Amino acid sequence: MPSILTLTTDFGTGSPYVAAMKGVVLSIHPAAQLIDLSHAIRPQQVRQAALLLAETTSLFPAGTLHVVVVDPGVGTARAIIYAEIGGQRYLCPDNGLLSLVLQRDRLAKSGTPTMIRRVTSEKYFRHPVSPTFHGRDIMAPIAAHLSLGLNPETLGPPFESPRDLTWPAAFKEANRISGEIVAVDAFGNLVTNITRDQLAGVPTGTETGIFCEDHETRGIFTTYADQPAMTLIALVGSNDCLELAIVNDSAAGLLGSDVGTPVEIRW
Amino acid sequence: MPSILTLTTDFGTGSPYVAAMKGVVLSIHPAAQLIDLSHAIRPQQVRQAALLLAETTSLFPAGTLHVVVVDPGVGTARAIIYAEIGGQRYLCPDNGLLSLVLQRDRLAKSGTPTMIRRVTSEKYFRHPVSPTFHGRDIMAPIAAHLSLGLNPETLGPPFESPRDLTWPAAFKEANRISGEIVAVDAFGNLVTNITRDQLAGVPTGTETGIFCEDHETRGIFTTYADQPAMTLIALVGSNDCLELAIVNDSAAGLLGSDVGTPVEIRW
Amino acid sequence: MPSILTLTTDFGTGSPYVAAMKGVVLSIHPAAQLIDLSHAIRPQQVRQAALLLAETTSLFPAGTLHVVVVDPGVGTARAIIYAEIGGQRYLCPDNGLLSLVLQRDRLAKSGTPTMIRRVTSEKYFRHPVSPTFHGRDIMAPIAAHLSLGLNPETLGPPFESPRDLTWPAAFKEANRISGEIVAVDAFGNLVTNITRDQLAGVPTGTETGIFCEDHETRGIFTTYADQPAMTLIALVGSNDCLELAIVNDSAAGLLGSDVGTPVEIRW
Repeated sequence: MPSILTLTTDFGTGSPYVAAMKGVVLSIHPAAQLIDLSHAIRPQQVRQAALLLAETTSLFPAGTLHVVVVDPGVGTARAIIYAEIGGQRYLCPDNGLLSLVLQRDRLAKSGTPTMIRRVTSEKYFRHPVSPTFHGRDIMAPIAAHLSLGLNPETLGPPFESPRDLTWPAAFKEANRISGEIVAVDAFGNLVTNITRDQLAGVPTGTETGIFCEDHETRGIFTTYADQPAMTLIALVGSNDCLELAIVNDSAAGLLGSDVGTPVEIRW
Repeated sequence: MPSILTLTTDFGTGSPYVAAMKGVVLSIHPAAQLIDLSHAIRPQQVRQAALLLAETTSLFPAGTLHVVVVDPGVGTARAIIYAEIGGQRYLCPDNGLLSLVLQRDRLAKSGTPTMIRRVTSEKYFRHPVSPTFHGRDIMAPIAAHLSLGLNPETLGPPFESPRDLTWPAAFKEANRISGEIVAVDAFGNLVTNITRDQLAGVPTGTETGIFCEDHETRGIFTTYADQPAMTLIALVGSNDCLELAIVNDSAAGLLGSDVGTPVEIRW
Repeated sequence: MPSILTLTTDFGTGSPYVAAMKGVVLSIHPAAQLIDLSHAIRPQQVRQAALLLAETTSLFPAGTLHVVVVDPGVGTARAIIYAEIGGQRYLCPDNGLLSLVLQRDRLAKSGTPTMIRRVTSEKYFRHPVSPTFHGRDIMAPIAAHLSLGLNPETLGPPFESPRDLTWPAAFKEANRISGEIVAVDAFGNLVTNITRDQLAGVPTGTETGIFCEDHETRGIFTTYADQPAMTLIALVGSNDCLELAIVNDSAAGLLGSDVGTPVEIRW
């Protein structure tokens, strides 16, 4: 197994909390290969982190350990879990962060066994444990030991029912699909939950209209440069979902739309 | 000694200045293990960086070299110093950046000897040295050579009196503690300078009021989720100081308070 | 050759797109040494990235591979190129990103041969290739294989004419130099395109005025602390170009100036 260990948090890039977690990991395993996945998750946005994990972690080498600290319930009775899903390893609070990873693994029928354990052994905790920073005092030291080869079965008992977040799914009818924006990227592109599979059979020409609040665009294109600058354009993005973009500018900025805004396709 | 080398600057995440420093370090020591501690220090905020160093560097493996470039006096006669404190190593301008690290090491009575030297040997400088970027031309190359095993005694003579920043300390009276906000994190939590030690003996129930400008909350709690969403709450944070938070939202945003705002506890 | 691989994008720090690229690289070459150069390039600002590359990549060890994804033309017929310039290696879209690197290498007369190839072999692409994310599906896997020792001649045929961006150059007359702001750093310092060479012979005393929109400062100084706080000051920055700064504050913020604003020196 590689000793690659990724970190995902809502602490903010450059936060002292991230620095603290890196220090704890390296103090136990100085040769751990730390990769910043993202520290730009909006505060306590479990869904945003869940989407990031589902879209990126499966790209890493098998056995990579992904430590995720988006944890509004820190210090409460919520569990901390270790999971092996689709060949990747995860350590995070049980608040739905792995919902989409699990869902996609089931759809992919990878055949790779899923294993989830609740962390109950306090052997590797830093003491005293701060009730507000389990990332530093529980997850970082356990992650370091896992990256050194600690047998995950020693962490605690099997955990049957990780919390599953209900997720907005787009809905397809005879001549329309109703979905919503689930992510906004740094370009201001509006990523929806309307999938490439749902778009099968939908005409891509101007007979198809895509509607987002008061804005409308016609046709589904292949890439951004398929239309002139400043045009609102719809296309299937790199995560296989429909997205709305303004060519060479920010759709989020110009349309004023954000996560949760309804998007409809009619043809 | 590990060859872990952390970088802390006020250059901004993604700044070309950080990229330049990484290039210089790696050109001398290609296998150096570079860790971004933070590049999000507010411009020239030596105190913010000093706090980050005090709260995080002691967590790293002994012998880690922390390079810190928050340097409003770059190009002037201020010294550049190398320090060994509590088993950690530091390279930075002498402007108070190590004040809190030194203070906490004295309090901890670790017994680990402190050694500070002024960098006077120009042997490893990049030439010509830019008067505005000693991070690239002085600190990066020296750090790379230190991580390769350079004897720090060759850098220059012992340095007796590093600059010591006066720091606001909270003040405890019979039935009140007066402190102030010293940091704001990415969640908008307001971290004060009122320590866990000072809170010893203070009742944690509703008989105790915590006051910040026009806002008041009662009682000292254990973790964020101890109160309903949108409640102003006081608790002892992961750095062992009192902090004010709005459950599931930003206290800094909603109260409009920032570093320097007075906070008072009365009981 | 070292296996150092730097990443520069306009995806935003913490973007899922950066995470995806890291995953793809590490899945092919788990021991690759990934360095974040910058993910804070403004969306689609090829010139900003070109400047960053010119100012920082030559500082890295020879053979470092710099992967650059600032790619407004993704999915169109624009080429993807691999280049060896001045001992450094680059993989990026052909949209002018290497203009300044090439220009400076010619000026430096390093004697190191330049080699550019167009990537045409699809052997190492991830399939299917998303038309909107060649960073993940083309550049990341090829970069990983290059860092493992792939012979770049197998990527495709020689490429003679990489796109060359015209660049604003400052203009010197008998008693004036006319230039403009080409970059703004995190301190709000305004970096111009007026070079140290052009400033040769220009008096540095108060007989020389530097003008930026409605603002004026007199004299050219050495470092920021040469004038009192809040003073507008001109100096030659660490990249050997004239810059305007407000001592201890942000010139960009206070003057309201940005990239493209004219700056004039008269004496």
